[in-house]
Amino acid sequence: MALTQSDKLKQLVAAQQRGYSLAQSFYKDLDVYQAEVKNIFLKHWLYAGHVSQIPSSGDYFTVDFDTESVIVLRTAVGAVKAHLNLCRHRGSRICLDQSGSQKSLTCPYHAWSYNLDGELISARNMPDDFARSVNGLHHVNVALLGGLIFICLSNTPLSLDSLRHDLKQPFKLFGMNSMKLAEQKSYRILANWKLAVENYQECYHCAPSHPEFAQIHAMAKSPKVFQTAKVNFSQANQDNPKFMALNRYFDLAEKGQEGYQYDRNPLLPGALSGSVGGKPVAPLLGALQEYDGGASELMIGPLSYFLIYDDHMLGYRFLPVSVDECICEVSWFVEESAVQGQDYQLEQLTWLWDVTTQADKSIIMNNQKGVDSRFYQPGRLSEMESFQQSFLDWYLQTLV
Amino acid sequence: MALTQSDKLKQLVAAQQRGYSLAQSFYKDLDVYQAEVKNIFLKHWLYAGHVSQIPSSGDYFTVDFDTESVIVLRTAVGAVKAHLNLCRHRGSRICLDQSGSQKSLTCPYHAWSYNLDGELISARNMPDDFARSVNGLHHVNVALLGGLIFICLSNTPLSLDSLRHDLKQPFKLFGMNSMKLAEQKSYRILANWKLAVENYQECYHCAPSHPEFAQIHAMAKSPKVFQTAKVNFSQANQDNPKFMALNRYFDLAEKGQEGYQYDRNPLLPGALSGSVGGKPVAPLLGALQEYDGGASELMIGPLSYFLIYDDHMLGYRFLPVSVDECICEVSWFVEESAVQGQDYQLEQLTWLWDVTTQADKSIIMNNQKGVDSRFYQPGRLSEMESFQQSFLDWYLQTLV
Amino acid sequence: MALTQSDKLKQLVAAQQRGYSLAQSFYKDLDVYQAEVKNIFLKHWLYAGHVSQIPSSGDYFTVDFDTESVIVLRTAVGAVKAHLNLCRHRGSRICLDQSGSQKSLTCPYHAWSYNLDGELISARNMPDDFARSVNGLHHVNVALLGGLIFICLSNTPLSLDSLRHDLKQPFKLFGMNSMKLAEQKSYRILANWKLAVENYQECYHCAPSHPEFAQIHAMAKSPKVFQTAKVNFSQANQDNPKFMALNRYFDLAEKGQEGYQYDRNPLLPGALSGSVGGKPVAPLLGALQEYDGGASELMIGPLSYFLIYDDHMLGYRFLPVSVDECICEVSWFVEESAVQGQDYQLEQLTWLWDVTTQADKSIIMNNQKGVDSRFYQPGRLSEMESFQQSFLDWYLQTLV
Repeated sequence: MALTQSDKLKQLVAAQQRGYSLAQSFYKDLDVYQAEVKNIFLKHWLYAGHVSQIPSSGDYFTVDFDTESVIVLRTAVGAVKAHLNLCRHRGSRICLDQSGSQKSLTCPYHAWSYNLDGELISARNMPDDFARSVNGLHHVNVALLGGLIFICLSNTPLSLDSLRHDLKQPFKLFGMNSMKLAEQKSYRILANWKLAVENYQECYHCAPSHPEFAQIHAMAKSPKVFQTAKVNFSQANQDNPKFMALNRYFDLAEKGQEGYQYDRNPLLPGALSGSVGGKPVAPLLGALQEYDGGASELMIGPLSYFLIYDDHMLGYRFLPVSVDECICEVSWFVEESAVQGQDYQLEQLTWLWDVTTQADKSIIMNNQKGVDSRFYQPGRLSEMESFQQSFLDWYLQTLV
Repeated sequence: MALTQSDKLKQLVAAQQRGYSLAQSFYKDLDVYQAEVKNIFLKHWLYAGHVSQIPSSGDYFTVDFDTESVIVLRTAVGAVKAHLNLCRHRGSRICLDQSGSQKSLTCPYHAWSYNLDGELISARNMPDDFARSVNGLHHVNVALLGGLIFICLSNTPLSLDSLRHDLKQPFKLFGMNSMKLAEQKSYRILANWKLAVENYQECYHCAPSHPEFAQIHAMAKSPKVFQTAKVNFSQANQDNPKFMALNRYFDLAEKGQEGYQYDRNPLLPGALSGSVGGKPVAPLLGALQEYDGGASELMIGPLSYFLIYDDHMLGYRFLPVSVDECICEVSWFVEESAVQGQDYQLEQLTWLWDVTTQADKSIIMNNQKGVDSRFYQPGRLSEMESFQQSFLDWYLQTLV
Repeated sequence: MALTQSDKLKQLVAAQQRGYSLAQSFYKDLDVYQAEVKNIFLKHWLYAGHVSQIPSSGDYFTVDFDTESVIVLRTAVGAVKAHLNLCRHRGSRICLDQSGSQKSLTCPYHAWSYNLDGELISARNMPDDFARSVNGLHHVNVALLGGLIFICLSNTPLSLDSLRHDLKQPFKLFGMNSMKLAEQKSYRILANWKLAVENYQECYHCAPSHPEFAQIHAMAKSPKVFQTAKVNFSQANQDNPKFMALNRYFDLAEKGQEGYQYDRNPLLPGALSGSVGGKPVAPLLGALQEYDGGASELMIGPLSYFLIYDDHMLGYRFLPVSVDECICEVSWFVEESAVQGQDYQLEQLTWLWDVTTQADKSIIMNNQKGVDSRFYQPGRLSEMESFQQSFLDWYLQTLV
């Protein structure tokens, strides 16, 4: 007799041994994947984009994952809102481009027209008892964290209050309200999304796989060396809010609150930024007055990661296309007054994390190939994969 | 306990609300798709091609849909016949090209050879008790309507008698026996076939999506404006058989008879044909003596549609490749004596419906993307989608 | 109530009629395919490559099928060994190239390092209770037959003793220990692997499909003509070990022993090798002193076939990519002292079986298209498909 999907997932979770990589089914099974979309991607806050992408009323961009598409836009009164990219008539996509600007959201099929707030304002030749008022676009929750735009497709989104409260000081220091998006690149990875997220979460692979990164970040060193450097770095900067450490990630999040993490790590001696030779590549961010030779890790929700150097910020977002394909989108942010070609060069700004992400893409896809083998067994995790272990603990609870 | 396929389909049909677009499963579920192939594509008459494509004995073309392939050919005595493109030995395709000419149907694998009537005439080195007589090619029913060739893969095809009787006069007027195929184009659409058929069945989208069409056809106007124009047009042409109206489509078809429809609609003032500026593009068809500023809609079976201007005819055929892909094939017909480059120019002849079908291809694919969303819900149909509603009514009855 | 997979397969096998091609499910059903991988590809010996491909310590090549990848290499002491290409940490592929040379097997992800014998020799920062000794690479069995390398992924591989014993003399004559690989080509075929294997097993299709082959090999003639030629050829060479005939293939194999077959067949009068005009294309193999106008068929296990002309040997290997895709890999071997460009020309050497395999690729894919039809029925096999019938008999026993 066939198991119900729910029982199947529970059995899989129960059989998973702590301290080991996940069993194959978690990376291949369609029922697992559907549960992930439902319980993770449709429930948590996702980094969508930046206010600098939609400066004027009517400006929009879309965010796609799995079978879903969301329109994020600037309304007539200048608010940021989001709607499902799905006409209420016969289901056509409304915005066909990844970004653009328009006065209203008019479906290209039968011209049903919605205002920027998502209300249906025009639908020709409908029966008399048709009610426009209940045929507006599906609402998607939006939250601004500095200039960062987050979306959540749940009707009962987790609260961001703790996060806002705790991160107030670093956000101020780094000028989260005064950045602009300098560049954005998408990396299409033929692998399950968790292999990509897990890859981001551990630096056990940094030394062998990322020589460019390893020349700049102390984190690529052995845990002992790195911890010593980190302790020294923190002690030298006590009472500086840049050096706070907040661990509310994954299962450490308070009930009803979205998870987050903030921490500052040392670069290697001499390095000031994430660039060739660790040299500065852009004007200092926000209220910063000097380089301190560190970089901050910021995690907002389980799927969006930020890395803040003193002169630029990286954003990492992981979204699934299907069970065996995902997209890692990388964003580079600089102080909004910085002028491209004058204050910063795109090639210098993006070099380190473009080369690193390209290497990761290859690594992740080779990982998937092996995980697909019927001889694959979960392997023992190292001491440098403890953050990934936290993710796995949370993931297994969240799935069922 | 898992539902049987039949029960699942019955539940889906019962849950579908009239006046709304179909639920998502109808566009994505493999069981639904298999039932459609069985109950629609294998039971109804399909437009295959035109006699002008196979003038001589041995000439053939193939018609493919889903996993099936049919050879339509001219036999030794000049008859039009059709066989499955499937060798009775080990199952190889026999005709590998889309069209050609050959004296016999010899399988390229082991050279089993069939005559043009489909009888096995040669099979080397077979056991003594092997009976060639029962190893002929599978027979496919063929019917000629004027020069149009229809095929039906059922052993008990629906009758075409009513259709033949009712359409006798318009067929004569338009010279259905004296046309030739001038051009044929295939449009591969990454969407379920019903989204393509539904698109063809309603003109609610014509005004916003097809500016070229809307400048020529009154049908793109609002229902009120169009109906007034149509009534005036019909009254001015009473007793002319071009202006008969026959509604035997879908559930209006008599039991045991294939469905059909015939109707004549006005173009906009000044337009004589479906072309740039509505100008004539070819010699008048058949027995016609003048342009009347109209175009006839002709539907033969649920999947083949024709549009007859006074100087050329369009054919539209919709066939599935798989649950999420279909092919719309468009054919242009002119009077058989017309000479290309002299009496008509291909580019002028094909312009309107090539540009329109390309636009529809894009529209239909964007419709599928939205229908794939887990937030898609059937939406209310407009008053201009009543013919599509008739199709849906029939479809739901036919599926189970 | 749904059948278990095992019951389903048993019903399929029971319903299959002898003397007919296989029913459609055997070529399309995923449960059938999974059973095939388990009971055939993971249990039997597969031709992997040739010792001349890995002359030095650290040289390796990979063999891939379905989701599996195997590293075949030369160890530090010069032995040939094979390991699964699967890191015991988190499952990454280790060797990413199809061939190469390296001192140790270091995973490109986290740098776990294995020696050439597959033992884990380095894994940084692991917990104290982590045991390297039980985290070596998965062992794959290797056997050398002359210079041919075979692999078997079963823990209890079939014995090759009978085969070694029986084939000793022909192996000596043909210098199986003194060949080198001259060329290797992969043919990716969009069809189930059995359609490719069955194609190799019968020459009913040779005359109509392979004019190049049919001009050289007597086997393409009718059974009567071929048998007469074969009897005459054998009688003229009695007591020559080249002309022994060993039928231990498929169900004729002894229990616990891998199957094999050896036989020598005449070429057409005047032909000495498999080449344009049947002319010699390379120096005589091994201990041979002259051309005898024949070619030997050698089958080792159910999936690897060899064809031995007096001056070169062909190897044919069939491996699945998925249920509907396979790879046929063809290898050309010559005497190891032969010098390319001087003693043989690659183009002349490879011509016949490259052109023949390209034709087969097309034939096999057209066969699959027909087998996919819902109207496909198993067809009667000819008298020239008896070896294929032996394969089918064995296959049906082996599947369940």
